[in-house]
Amino acid sequence: MRVLKSDSARLTPEFGIMVGRWSQYTEAAAAPFGAMWCVVPPGGQTDTDCHPDTELVVVVRGSADVRAGGHTETALPGTAVLLEREEPHVLVNRSADEPLVTLSVYWVAEEVTAGAGQADAG
Amino acid sequence: MRVLKSDSARLTPEFGIMVGRWSQYTEAAAAPFGAMWCVVPPGGQTDTDCHPDTELVVVVRGSADVRAGGHTETALPGTAVLLEREEPHVLVNRSADEPLVTLSVYWVAEEVTAGAGQADAG
Repeated sequence: MRVLKSDSARLTPEFGIMVGRWSQYTEAAAAPFGAMWCVVPPGGQTDTDCHPDTELVVVVRGSADVRAGGHTETALPGTAVLLEREEPHVLVNRSADEPLVTLSVYWVAEEVTAGAGQADAG
Repeated sequence: MRVLKSDSARLTPEFGIMVGRWSQYTEAAAAPFGAMWCVVPPGGQTDTDCHPDTELVVVVRGSADVRAGGHTETALPGTAVLLEREEPHVLVNRSADEPLVTLSVYWVAEEVTAGAGQADAG
């Protein structure tokens, strides 16, 4: 087994916050998704982000507001937020004292074509 | 966006603990991995688990000991543990008072064959 800690990850400034991309973990290279730790300082928030990847935001520490599609969802540890591709979103740290830490997992969904799955469905 | 909460997930007894499989979320069906919430009661632990999937255990609440390969790693929220395929493992809740909640993500890694990648590597 291999232990991957947000505390000791190499962080770089991206999206207005600090990001620890999992490309630094060679053991995770074969995963069918990309991943990164996101560390949002107290009172901070990300820039608006939008991309062709579907994204899963898993809250692991602190308290988040996730803003997307004109709505805001509050997410605590034990909650994950699934963002559709090309859905603009902002991640806000609701706390003035504690950092917010999330694990973002992202992937490009297979294109669903009109004919796909008909053989199985029939 | 779609909010997925371990608190309100449909849980079933599996592996000696309570599991909330993400197959209950139709929105997550297209992800290139399987996922489940694992809720380990205070003082509890899973049965020994072993499978051909690579598994990523993301601790989101509480305090875990992950036992594998003769070692024990303590994992708090903000830590993820990557388990190799066919690596027997046990997840232990270190607390006598609080539940342990993890998100397990799993996938079958692509087979690496002797000839794979030679064109790129050359």
